[in-house]
Formats: sequence, C-alpha cells, structure tokens
Amino acid sequence: MNDITMTSFESDYNNGAHPDILRHFLETNNLQSQSYGYDQWSESARAKIREATQSPEASIFFLTGGTQANATIIDGMTASYEGVVSVATAHINVHESGAVEAFGHKVLTLPSHDGKMDADELHDYLKAYHADPTWEHMVYPGMVYITFPTELGTVYKAHEIESIHTICQEYNIPLFIDGARLGYGLASAECDFNLSWLAHHCDAFYIGGTKVGALCGEAVVFPRGNAPRQFFTIVKRHGALLAKSRVAGVQFDALFTDGLYFRIAQHAIDKAMQLRKLFTEAGLTLRNSSTNQQFVELSNTQMETLSQSVLFETWEPIDDSHTLCRFVTSWATTDENMNTLSQALKDLTA
Amino acid sequence: MNDITMTSFESDYNNGAHPDILRHFLETNNLQSQSYGYDQWSESARAKIREATQSPEASIFFLTGGTQANATIIDGMTASYEGVVSVATAHINVHESGAVEAFGHKVLTLPSHDGKMDADELHDYLKAYHADPTWEHMVYPGMVYITFPTELGTVYKAHEIESIHTICQEYNIPLFIDGARLGYGLASAECDFNLSWLAHHCDAFYIGGTKVGALCGEAVVFPRGNAPRQFFTIVKRHGALLAKSRVAGVQFDALFTDGLYFRIAQHAIDKAMQLRKLFTEAGLTLRNSSTNQQFVELSNTQMETLSQSVLFETWEPIDDSHTLCRFVTSWATTDENMNTLSQALKDLTA
Amino acid sequence: MNDITMTSFESDYNNGAHPDILRHFLETNNLQSQSYGYDQWSESARAKIREATQSPEASIFFLTGGTQANATIIDGMTASYEGVVSVATAHINVHESGAVEAFGHKVLTLPSHDGKMDADELHDYLKAYHADPTWEHMVYPGMVYITFPTELGTVYKAHEIESIHTICQEYNIPLFIDGARLGYGLASAECDFNLSWLAHHCDAFYIGGTKVGALCGEAVVFPRGNAPRQFFTIVKRHGALLAKSRVAGVQFDALFTDGLYFRIAQHAIDKAMQLRKLFTEAGLTLRNSSTNQQFVELSNTQMETLSQSVLFETWEPIDDSHTLCRFVTSWATTDENMNTLSQALKDLTA
Amino acid sequence: MNDITMTSFESDYNNGAHPDILRHFLETNNLQSQSYGYDQWSESARAKIREATQSPEASIFFLTGGTQANATIIDGMTASYEGVVSVATAHINVHESGAVEAFGHKVLTLPSHDGKMDADELHDYLKAYHADPTWEHMVYPGMVYITFPTELGTVYKAHEIESIHTICQEYNIPLFIDGARLGYGLASAECDFNLSWLAHHCDAFYIGGTKVGALCGEAVVFPRGNAPRQFFTIVKRHGALLAKSRVAGVQFDALFTDGLYFRIAQHAIDKAMQLRKLFTEAGLTLRNSSTNQQFVELSNTQMETLSQSVLFETWEPIDDSHTLCRFVTSWATTDENMNTLSQALKDLTA
Repeated sequence: MNDITMTSFESDYNNGAHPDILRHFLETNNLQSQSYGYDQWSESARAKIREATQSPEASIFFLTGGTQANATIIDGMTASYEGVVSVATAHINVHESGAVEAFGHKVLTLPSHDGKMDADELHDYLKAYHADPTWEHMVYPGMVYITFPTELGTVYKAHEIESIHTICQEYNIPLFIDGARLGYGLASAECDFNLSWLAHHCDAFYIGGTKVGALCGEAVVFPRGNAPRQFFTIVKRHGALLAKSRVAGVQFDALFTDGLYFRIAQHAIDKAMQLRKLFTEAGLTLRNSSTNQQFVELSNTQMETLSQSVLFETWEPIDDSHTLCRFVTSWATTDENMNTLSQALKDLTA
Repeated sequence: MNDITMTSFESDYNNGAHPDILRHFLETNNLQSQSYGYDQWSESARAKIREATQSPEASIFFLTGGTQANATIIDGMTASYEGVVSVATAHINVHESGAVEAFGHKVLTLPSHDGKMDADELHDYLKAYHADPTWEHMVYPGMVYITFPTELGTVYKAHEIESIHTICQEYNIPLFIDGARLGYGLASAECDFNLSWLAHHCDAFYIGGTKVGALCGEAVVFPRGNAPRQFFTIVKRHGALLAKSRVAGVQFDALFTDGLYFRIAQHAIDKAMQLRKLFTEAGLTLRNSSTNQQFVELSNTQMETLSQSVLFETWEPIDDSHTLCRFVTSWATTDENMNTLSQALKDLTA
Repeated sequence: MNDITMTSFESDYNNGAHPDILRHFLETNNLQSQSYGYDQWSESARAKIREATQSPEASIFFLTGGTQANATIIDGMTASYEGVVSVATAHINVHESGAVEAFGHKVLTLPSHDGKMDADELHDYLKAYHADPTWEHMVYPGMVYITFPTELGTVYKAHEIESIHTICQEYNIPLFIDGARLGYGLASAECDFNLSWLAHHCDAFYIGGTKVGALCGEAVVFPRGNAPRQFFTIVKRHGALLAKSRVAGVQFDALFTDGLYFRIAQHAIDKAMQLRKLFTEAGLTLRNSSTNQQFVELSNTQMETLSQSVLFETWEPIDDSHTLCRFVTSWATTDENMNTLSQALKDLTA
Repeated sequence: MNDITMTSFESDYNNGAHPDILRHFLETNNLQSQSYGYDQWSESARAKIREATQSPEASIFFLTGGTQANATIIDGMTASYEGVVSVATAHINVHESGAVEAFGHKVLTLPSHDGKMDADELHDYLKAYHADPTWEHMVYPGMVYITFPTELGTVYKAHEIESIHTICQEYNIPLFIDGARLGYGLASAECDFNLSWLAHHCDAFYIGGTKVGALCGEAVVFPRGNAPRQFFTIVKRHGALLAKSRVAGVQFDALFTDGLYFRIAQHAIDKAMQLRKLFTEAGLTLRNSSTNQQFVELSNTQMETLSQSVLFETWEPIDDSHTLCRFVTSWATTDENMNTLSQALKDLTA
C-alpha cells in the first residue's frame, strides 16, 4: 500500500467531495423527502440538467457508479439477444468484470484508435454484418457505445460523433456515450462542442459525478424522453436504485448550480496542462491527451525515483525497461501538489 | 405527491443522515485515500465491525443498497443452477424487481408466518426435495434467506435462527440473513441475542445502513472469512463497487463509533413503542411488531382523516372498508412528531 | 432400476417413434436438404400445420424438447425484466430446473385448480399489480403461461381459455400455451374446441411431438406471424437450433400427414379410458383426468403388489399409507398391455 | 435458395444419417426404455466410448448440438463470473449468437493462427492477467476453449495441445475441446494422436455426431469422471435434456459399434483429399487444411461458373474480385459427386 499522505496523482477518485457538495448535504440534511428518485433535489437537479442540455423532454436517472450505469443502460436499451459495439480498449470490454455479459449481452469489438472508434470501421462492420449470409447465427449489433473522453484521455471531435450517430440512425440502433469523465472532455481545449450539442447527437449518455467532484453518482440522460419502457424497474433489477435518492440528487443539484460541474472540470484540465508542461520541460514524453488523465513514458528507474516523491499509477509496460504511467488531476489538485511534482521532476533530471 | 413538510411516518429513508455521520464526512473530506474498498475508513469500519461481531476473521464489503446486497450475496454464494429458499413475503421475492432471477437464481418459497420462516417447514421442504425421484429436474435449494427483522416488523428468537442454521448445516447450504433493518431487530425488546451471536449463527449477513441512519450503505459480513472466491470481482460485476468507497466507509466508521448504530436503532424503537401506545390508547388495533415498523388497522374513513395530519403508508387492503397502514420511526423521529400524532389520534377519536 | 421389459405405464416417452415416422426417415434419408430449419420437410410440415391450424400467416419453428421450447418462447416474447404468470404446479415452475430463470425471468405464481389457472384470479392479480403503489419495485407480469392439457391431465374448456385470453388482451400481454401433450388434450372427450380454435385464442403455443409419437420435437407456432423479431437468433442463442433440422421436420411432416398426430392421440386416450374403467371396476379411486395421464390412489400395499406386474410412477404421497400413482398411455400401448393390467388388478383385489 | 438436388459440397449436415444409424433406430424402436439419459442405448454407448477413450471413469452426456454443448459445458465448468479464453475465430465467439454470454460468461479472445491458439500467447495472456494490478476489475480467465479440428480445417499437433493443457494445469483452469468435427480431425493425415490420447490431455471434450454421420447428437465426455456437480440439472436448465434420450443414445451406440464413427470420418477425409487434388490440378489455390473442410480461392467469375455445376459455400471475400469458398465432404460424398466436380473444374479451366 502506498503512503496516502503523499502528494497523489493516482486518480480523480481518491479525494472527498467538492466542498460545495458537502455544504449542500449539510443544508438539506434536516429536510424530509420522497425516496427512490422522487426527492426534491433529484427533481431540481433534473430541471437544471434539462436546462444545461437544452433537452426539455429528457428523462434523467441518478445511479451510483459508471459500471452500474453502463450495464443498466446497455441492458435497458437492447433486446436480450443484442450485443453492443465498442472499441477493444473500452471500459465495458476491459475493466468491468463482465458486468455487461452478466446480463447476457456480448461486447462486439472494433479496433481502438487512441481509445476512439473510427466511424468508417463502424460502418464497414455493420454493413458486413448485415451482408453476411450467416448473420442470423451471429450476435446482432444492437447498440454503439463510445466513451467521452476515452479511457486514454483523448476526445472525439464533433464531426466524428456526428458520423457515428448518423451511422447508428442508418441502422436504427442507439448511440450511447459513457461520460464517466464527461466534464473533463467538455473542458478539453480540443473539444469543439458543448453539453447541449452532445445531448442532441446521441440517444443516451451519462454525466459522471464520481470522478468529477462528487462522492458518487452518475446522471443518466435520455435526451428526448426516450428512456426504455419501465426503466425504473430495470434500475431496481440491476440493484441500482437508491432508497435515499437524495444522496445522488443533492450532489447533482449542487454540481449543476452556478456551473460547479464545469468549474471543477476546468480546474482539473488547467492542472493537467500545467502537468504536461512540467513533464515536457523535464524532457519526458507524454501520450496525446487533452484531458485530466496524462500518460507519461518513464524509464523504470525514473518511475522508481519519482514514486518516492509523488503517487501515480503504472498503466502498462512499454518495454522491458520503460513503463507508461498515468497522472490524474481533479478538483482537489492544488498548486502545492504541482510544486511538489515540479521539484520531483527537477530532482529526477538533475 | 404528499406534502413532504408534514409530519411523516412514511419510512425510515425519507430523512438525511444522522448528524454524526455528516460530521465524519466533513472531518475526513480533505484527506486522500485509496479507492475501491481500500480506503482507511472502510478499513477502520471493518475493524470496528469485526470487534462488534466478535468475528476477527470476518470478510467485510460495503455495498450501497439492500436489493444490490441481496442479489450480490445470493449470486456469489450459490452455483449458477441453485435457487434460494425464502418465505413468500420476503423482500427478494416481492419487491426487488426480479434482481435475484436476473442472475439466474430461482426464489423457492415457503409459507410466511408473520414474515418468518418455520424451521420445521424448511426441514420438510429440504427432506422432500432430496427424497423426490425427480429432484434432478427441480431447482436445487442451495441457500436459505431470512430477513431480520422481517418485512412485517417481527423478530426471530435465537432458538428459531439456531434451528434454521442447524438445518442448513445438515444440508450443507449457507444461511444468509438480510439485515436491511438489522439494528431495529437487535434493539427490539423481543430479541434475545446480540450482533455477535447473530454473526456466529449464520454464514452471511449484512448490517443495513440506509435505513438505520446512513445516507446509503450496507455492510456485508462473511463472519468466518468465508467470502466467496473473488467476491471483489463479483461485486464489480454486479455494478456494486464504489470507486470512492469512502462514501460507505466513512458512514460505517461513524456508525460503529461509540455505538452510534445501536443508539440510532434504540431511539427509533423507543419512538415506535410510544407510537404503539398512542394507537392502542386510541382504541386501534396494531399487528404484532416489536420493531420500528408498525402496522395499524384503520377504517378507510380514519385513514383519510389521519392522512390530513400525518404522512404514513397504506400497506394493503384488509376488506372493502379497512386498510392496513404502516407507520415507521427512525433516528429523525422527534417528540414533536409524536405530539402531532397524539393530537391527530385524539381528533380522530373525539 | 426397473425391469424395462415389463409392461409399462410409466410415461409416454419410454417407447420409440411411431412406425410411420421411422418410415418417413427411411424414405427421405438419401435426399439432400438445406439446414437450420430451411429443409424441405420442415417447410412441408409448416404448410401442413398452417393448414391444420387455419393460420396461413403462422410462423413455425421446430425445437427439440418442452423445457427448451418454454424457455425460448418465454424469453423471446418478454422484455428482460418481465416475468411470466403461471399456476404453482406448472411445469416451468417445478420441473424445468430453473430454465426460465436462467434467462432472467421470474415465474409469478397463481393457485392451481387441478392444474388449471382461474381467469378471475388472473384478473385480480393483474389488477392488483397495476393498482399497487409499489408496482415499479415488483416484477412486471409480461406474459401468461398455461399448459394444455395440464400436468395433472385436466383440460380447459374453450370459455376458460377465452376468458384468460381476453384478460391478456386487456393488459396487452401475450398468452402462451404449453402443448407438450397437446394432442391428448384435443382428443379428450371433455375438450370442446379443436386445434384451429386454439391457434386463434392465444399468441403462441407449441404442438408437442416428443410425448405424442415422435422421437423428439416440438412445433412452436406464432399463429399470426407474430414471432419475436429475430427469433431464429434467439433459438440459436438458446442452443436450440438444429443443424440437420430435418430431424424435426421429417417427424412433423409425418405427424401432420393423414392426421397421424390426431390418430396417435386418440389411440392413447382410448387406452386411458379403458384403464380408468379397469381401475374403477377394481374399486380404486382415480383423480379427475380425461387425458392420457391417469392418477390413481393406491394403498402402499397395493402399490407394492401392483408394481410386481406393471411399471408405473409414484406421483406423490397422499398420507402415510397411501400414494398417488401415475399411469400413462401412448401410441405404443397395446391391448396386451391392457390385459396384463386387467389381470394384475384382478389379482390385487382377489 | 439453391437447387438442392445438385451435387453439393455445402456442408456435412445437409444429408441424412448414415444407413447403419437408421438401421439401429429400426431394430430398437419397439423396445421400451428408461428416459432422460438412462436408456439402455445411452448406457451402451457410454461403455463403448469409455472403451474407445480408455477412460473407464468418464462421465458422458448426450446433447443435441454443438452450440448447446458449448454453452452447457462452459457454463457448467466455470463460476458465474469467469470467462472463457478462445481464439477470435472460434465458433463460440462468432457463430453462436451469444449463447455463451447468454449465461453470463465473457469470451476472452486471443489471436487466431489458422484457427489455432498459440500456447505461448495463452501463457503470456494468463501471466499478464494475474500480474495486472487491476486484475480484480477484469473478467477472470476461468477456462480455455479450443476446437479440434478448427473452424478453418486445421489440426493441432499433440505437442501443441500438450502445451496448452500444461498451461491450464499451471493456472488450475480446465481445458475444453470442441469436437463438433472431432472424427475428421482424428482422421487427418496430419494428426499425430488418437481419441484416447485426446481424452487424457484435456478436462472436457465432445465427440460431434451431427456433422459426422448422425442426425443429431454430441457426446460430452468428462474423461476422469470430472463432470460438474449436478450436471444433469445444468443440462436440463439449458433446455438440453432429451426425454427420449434414445434419440441420441441409439445413434452413438451405432457410431461406436465396429468403428463406424472412424470409418465415416475416414471416408470424408479421403474424399476431401481427392477434392484437394482436383482443385490443385485445376491450378487453383487451397488454404492449408487436412480435414473435410476445404477452402479454395476463386475469382468471382470462377465462383459464378462453378456454382452452375455444384453447390458450395462462399466463406469470405478475399478482395474485390476474389472469394474464399468452402467445399465440405461427408459420409454421403460419393465417387459420382467427385466426378461431377472433376468435370466442372475441367470445364472451368478449359
């Protein structure tokens, strides 16, 4: 176990909640409420999200985590025999312990391009499937899943999502966007659209709270009121229904008050860009990423030395003597943290 | 929708967290932690629960809700083809939207006796199953599930649980106790055992937090370190793993500090007993219940009148002109609430 | 193990195929065919069944067994979160090893009345479900399943099925009729409708072959071409698709040529009625059944003695000294078999 | 639809049963039997298979088809949360409509090398999985699945299977061999082991009947009596239990009498080798295959012309003007068929 008092860039979920969220818990704690999603803060948060997405008809549900949201949405929007198309590096395909398959759905994989799906490859895949004489023996591609930003910190351009969405419409299947770190994607300098645009270019998405300042919570949005029939029951069947739904409602009510969600994201992106600068100045190579996850190539010696000063995550081996390491910023990343990192990098290259 | 500012006895999940829990969130918020269950408060809470259950070897996991805990534990402790034996009124059989069946397990039902399972009937059932020449065509009873206290507010005696546990051991299947309202059962005047005794007379149980003062959270306990192999992965596969596990850890750390969990439960029981007294004095009939859920028989006229003054839940029709109504107390039930109810009952019978 | 050369009334699946079926295998064996349901005999059998059911639009699929057909049809016609309503004694609820739950669907049970569902009880159940304020937390009743004839040998009257079907239409859910022994039900003297009538009063049913003269095979009929979207894929996903689909097609082609299916059934019913007469004359009590399964009350001494002469099945204990025993007839039941039974009963009561 | 009276090399399942199998149906049809796998021919077939595999302790079950056998075995031998490792081209990953995922298991893919798994890549995969710090979030590789022969007609060498088996033992997971076309693999000139050797170098396999002369049926073998606990119930739960189990038992009893299974396979291999010779002599290129499936590269013009004379299957496009086509032999392939093909090839290249 690491020394958790050290300056940490391990993840965006190793700190508490943004103070404004805690404050909202305090000021609402003594109020009674309805439960199971009908509490007043969930209702308020829904109104604010409908406003922020310019989707007045949106159906909105609050779940506790990303894997849960993915499994529930995918299961809810597909027939039992349908699979979901994603890139091979997608969270649902790698890091969710088979939660999608647990409900009977196959993950159908396409190649990952820095974490992104290529629209042409998707089109070719769907075309080939429907042209294959044995298609009836194969899993029907019944949904497309992409992550924004991707697991590798990259972001889609508007035209890329638009292309994928158009293909989905051509094949009459929904496009679902996993937004576990949505705020960071939208705050990226490379992002050329906003939340409302996104809501109008997919069939379901969620606004990640857990990794963007909340203690827990993901806001699942069906932008045109297109929630699957009896989605409440589906959520319950997935073990995802909160009795005291205020636990999510209060947080999203705070996150969508005065743009807190976006300010948290922007702060983390600013720190991430500083971090890129520090690494680059230290002569180190970073992978392409404009979001709050930064992937740095370190020699194993550098990695060892640096880990004496700051915490971070080893991502994957590059070769026998080099490792790709992940550094993550969040609402809680301070100037002091950056100074510690800066000093550590100076020591490293001294 | 009800007027949520009225005095409410609707449920034990329509209030916020006990203030001591919120305070613990505040005092820990700025500390870094590990995630996915490895945070320091989860570890501390585990130590305290091991102490409180006198189960030094216990494996403990924190999940967010009761339905989720039930589905995850049942799925984790049974083979894919095994079913779980419960009474017909059990929460898993009625109010969980088929979450157990979603993972392929049939709920095998026995008659409910005021919410309780009869040990002799269980024994007869298991004996008959194993004696049936067609048993291979029937779902194997691979686990026994009981609730403590039951959905109807009743409690098992120690000897009743002991009998059920002995039968389970005879058939080599685990006994799992759903403790969504565990505190209230233990605080009941009719309960003749304590938490540690319980931990030593079953194979798995959970300590309900959501309905006993927390915002969310259930502490799943495998008392002899008998968690299913790779239960962490099973939890994740069920969408039940919290990234910021502190959200549950902090709460259980508070709940098991200075007996807060037991004090919350005792408070609710005291109020429930006052409530019984008020109804009895008003000449109304209550069903047998020694816990925080009280079931009162009201004429529909009485029900209508009373609902002008206090909130409560209609449980089920008794006949065309009478309804069974549920009144629930919690940590948040105040003397003022009791006075309002008292006055309302006086008006009702005036 | 029993002596299988003894005269047997154990079941309608302990003999080979009706000779006409074997003959059709012989005469078609050297012909090439398409596979996976597209062979010429499957097509021919479909045409004959469409004719026999006066359902020119019917979609027809051939599966191998009853449990498989039940699980595939129920899974295919319901949403993932929906359950199926049946009586407690139904085959899907008791003797299918949880095959329906394996695909995530709960079996929602009503009382059995000699194996039959009561239309009023169904109506009350559906009404109560939809009126329950907590219905969203409960499994949605998404289909009704009945067996014709029932597991206890009884048959529904036309008006009973009509009532159930009307209720299903009121609630917009399909009625599915398990016809594992369909022929025997239709041949029953108590049956007041024919195959075509049945096809017009439900949404799916199957014509059981395995227990009515075939080696294996059930013809699943969606009478108005209302097969679930991509049912072929659903069948394959259930492991129920035959590569050499001729194995089922040839059999059903024979069964629906010159009324063989109905002749087989009538033969078994005739023998069953003779059997009733023999038991009655011997002073023994039979349960109500007008089909090929007869349930006789025997003292355990009688049971023991009789089992020296003929094979039959013990069904369930009546009391400590009496047992309900099942005697079944089939296409293969001969006059000689009846004589053996007659003599055995004479010896029993001598 | 093709003209099914044309000479066909489309598949090994477009003909009826080998005459010796039909004969056995005829000679056993009037005999009574037990059911559900306990009939005398199933017992006899088991004895013969135990002898042929030199596995006196083997547990043997007869199922109807390959997809069904794969799903049932994989589900039976893995824990609910475990996945199965296979190559990407494997039948379970491509052509089974998600039957494995339907029971909650993820297919974890490795690269295909002419349809085969590379032992070193398997080892690297398992090693990397267990070394990954996030392994708990990933699907546990709980079984290895290979096909023999492969979907591409290739065969493993003994040392290759031995390596894979050794790795499985190192990681304590079972090796399961899909033998839908097992006979053809064993009859291949490139195969350097026999059936008994195979049974001693894996944990489960099946002897395919459907594609090797039977009407239907796969013999599932757990060579050391290592069937999963309550596998009978698991089979029933998968809808795979035959009431008249003689339908499979009779066929395997015939197939393992006087080496019929091996003679059928040898005949098909002989014809396949003749077929290779014909294509090669015609100057056409075949892919590497020593079994009864032959893959030939044809220009689209050649494909069109040839399809006027004989039936075959288009496998996949090679480029815009060339297609890989599959030609399959079976017990039913005659010298006359070969002459027709020979003449057609002569015409093609004339």
